[in-house]
Amino acid sequence: MDNLNLDSVSKVLTQVRNKVPLVDCITNSVTINDCANILLSYGASPAMCEAYDEVFDFVKISSALYINLGTLTKEQEAAVILASTSAKIHNIPVILDPVACAAIPRKAQVINRIMQVGKVDVIKGNVGEIKFLAGQSSNVRGVDSLDNGEGALDSAVALAKKYNCVVAATGKEDFITDGKNSVVIQNGVEMLTKITGSGCMLGALCGAAIGAYEDKFIATVSAIFSMNIAGEEAYKAAKAPGTFRVKLIDSIYELTEEKLKKGGKITWK
Amino acid sequence: MDNLNLDSVSKVLTQVRNKVPLVDCITNSVTINDCANILLSYGASPAMCEAYDEVFDFVKISSALYINLGTLTKEQEAAVILASTSAKIHNIPVILDPVACAAIPRKAQVINRIMQVGKVDVIKGNVGEIKFLAGQSSNVRGVDSLDNGEGALDSAVALAKKYNCVVAATGKEDFITDGKNSVVIQNGVEMLTKITGSGCMLGALCGAAIGAYEDKFIATVSAIFSMNIAGEEAYKAAKAPGTFRVKLIDSIYELTEEKLKKGGKITWK
Amino acid sequence: MDNLNLDSVSKVLTQVRNKVPLVDCITNSVTINDCANILLSYGASPAMCEAYDEVFDFVKISSALYINLGTLTKEQEAAVILASTSAKIHNIPVILDPVACAAIPRKAQVINRIMQVGKVDVIKGNVGEIKFLAGQSSNVRGVDSLDNGEGALDSAVALAKKYNCVVAATGKEDFITDGKNSVVIQNGVEMLTKITGSGCMLGALCGAAIGAYEDKFIATVSAIFSMNIAGEEAYKAAKAPGTFRVKLIDSIYELTEEKLKKGGKITWK
Repeated sequence: MDNLNLDSVSKVLTQVRNKVPLVDCITNSVTINDCANILLSYGASPAMCEAYDEVFDFVKISSALYINLGTLTKEQEAAVILASTSAKIHNIPVILDPVACAAIPRKAQVINRIMQVGKVDVIKGNVGEIKFLAGQSSNVRGVDSLDNGEGALDSAVALAKKYNCVVAATGKEDFITDGKNSVVIQNGVEMLTKITGSGCMLGALCGAAIGAYEDKFIATVSAIFSMNIAGEEAYKAAKAPGTFRVKLIDSIYELTEEKLKKGGKITWK
Repeated sequence: MDNLNLDSVSKVLTQVRNKVPLVDCITNSVTINDCANILLSYGASPAMCEAYDEVFDFVKISSALYINLGTLTKEQEAAVILASTSAKIHNIPVILDPVACAAIPRKAQVINRIMQVGKVDVIKGNVGEIKFLAGQSSNVRGVDSLDNGEGALDSAVALAKKYNCVVAATGKEDFITDGKNSVVIQNGVEMLTKITGSGCMLGALCGAAIGAYEDKFIATVSAIFSMNIAGEEAYKAAKAPGTFRVKLIDSIYELTEEKLKKGGKITWK
Repeated sequence: MDNLNLDSVSKVLTQVRNKVPLVDCITNSVTINDCANILLSYGASPAMCEAYDEVFDFVKISSALYINLGTLTKEQEAAVILASTSAKIHNIPVILDPVACAAIPRKAQVINRIMQVGKVDVIKGNVGEIKFLAGQSSNVRGVDSLDNGEGALDSAVALAKKYNCVVAATGKEDFITDGKNSVVIQNGVEMLTKITGSGCMLGALCGAAIGAYEDKFIATVSAIFSMNIAGEEAYKAAKAPGTFRVKLIDSIYELTEEKLKKGGKITWK
């Protein structure tokens, strides 16, 4: 593993811009446009190839696969299973956003099937979702977590060990772990919860990061940290959600290693 | 019924923000992102749960169900029938946006089925759609109504009586009725017709209002009035549609009871 | 054919605004909202009718049909075949955006079927896609073309002759031909490649233009030229992609014949 410090975290950004990873996203229809736009702003190349007849071959040529279970149609359900299998066969990194898994039983079933036949390298969910997947009781309402961060890191570590992957539990504080090393990020702004798709866009950025940078733990930390800093930058320019959302895309585009190094409230554990 | 006055209409806004209603939207893919964002700005909690395998149970935990027939896939068609049935069984308020029902026969068939097995508490359409559903001749082109408001209130009243629900016929003027009491709103700006999704977003806001406020007639009036006032506010800041659309979300977020009370061009009938 | 000059190209804009063409779009879920909004800003009337049970009759009442193969579901695949057949029977102009046809074999199969049973009046793709359809080797990565413009015009001319239609190969320079007359446009800005949907929106504008203006070659040139000039205008106001995207919609709305006539870097061949 690379050194766990702000330097290695920050340089992932430059790697993304140099490598322009092709990120295939199978994601919900609500924020699919936001995911594509933020990937472009980050420096990645988005593809939203999700048709059952296309995904197996397309994943093979992708740098990473992002699976988001938000509005899963029947066709998408078949496609994510097949895509994750292709990723396993072709050794393509996969990030899973288990949207609403604690509220909707079908989501948990699909996740189990993905784990059975495919593979996942990073799971990124809100605290409620991560607790649920770790077998802990969680407090959710629809797609939202009502849990505070208490117990989140323990759940993330347990889940990371269970599936031998990186796990990120996001919220007011973000907890990221590979089961051994852990990080808590205290950056970000409340306004990120007033727009739809903050979590989805974050998942897409994680996909770009693990598609461009070998160490998936550092890559995930970097993507989450980048979103938080961009959120802080955007909030300086915009105090209402319509404008904030526009500025968030701008801020990801204008992000630099220097901005990342200056603003970090990161605790290494 | 509550007093029909600007005070009761305005206080719905505060109720939405206090109760944070969970609004499940089964809506078109064109403006699904706008609907989610405006619900968040209004103070509600959006969910876009529309999968056939998920909706029955999800509607049960929702504060309201919003059905919009814009781009109805085969799977969505089955889902809206099931969701409206769930709403009937679990006594969840439902708002229907009968998009393009006057131009596309299939939409009318789906509406009939919803009425047969499910239920609808509020129908909100443009003048052409409401006239069509009331059995009057209407003048439409694709999804747009070419009718002016003439005869709109009569049609709305007839439709409200037919289905024992609240009916809103929107356009340059908006007509809202529960079959006995009626309201005409003359607020709003032309620019709302230069962006896609004004009507869809309005339907979503109605869903939030009836999910947070008992009296569905007052709630519907309040949501429509709120959209009109927010449109006027946004237009003060933006004279072109790209920027206007961003400011509209900001304006819903920044709406207050005071702004609502100041700007009303409402006629009670 | 009309005179090939900047005057005839510019006046298409006024024709669109006078005739308000109803453009039915069967397009991808990533940028469907952008396509609807830019059509409204251009002066057209967008409809996103794509359900298999609806398209045959809806195409009949449309001014033009826009087919974009970006995220083609199984239901959409059936719908585009049927819609293009309806267009042939009812003599409705059709524009095809063959997204990712060089990277994903299924896209090429669907295009062949459209050509077999339906019809296409304009094909607009990036250079890689046009070369591929013309039977030339092309260099693509996912949905992006890595080709420069070398050989693009020859490929476009060959393709135009093969299908007896207008062909546009877009990129840093845009090549448009009807097989006999050709045009190269050197307007536009790099920032258009930093947002998703520039190409999709361009296809939608072409749909509006051929729906409002008889000469499809001039109409296509005009739509592409309009997008490029609007991009230049937007870039004057916005140097980051979030804001640029908003201003692009504004700039299409604020476009005038005068702005078009002033800015052209068009070469007639």
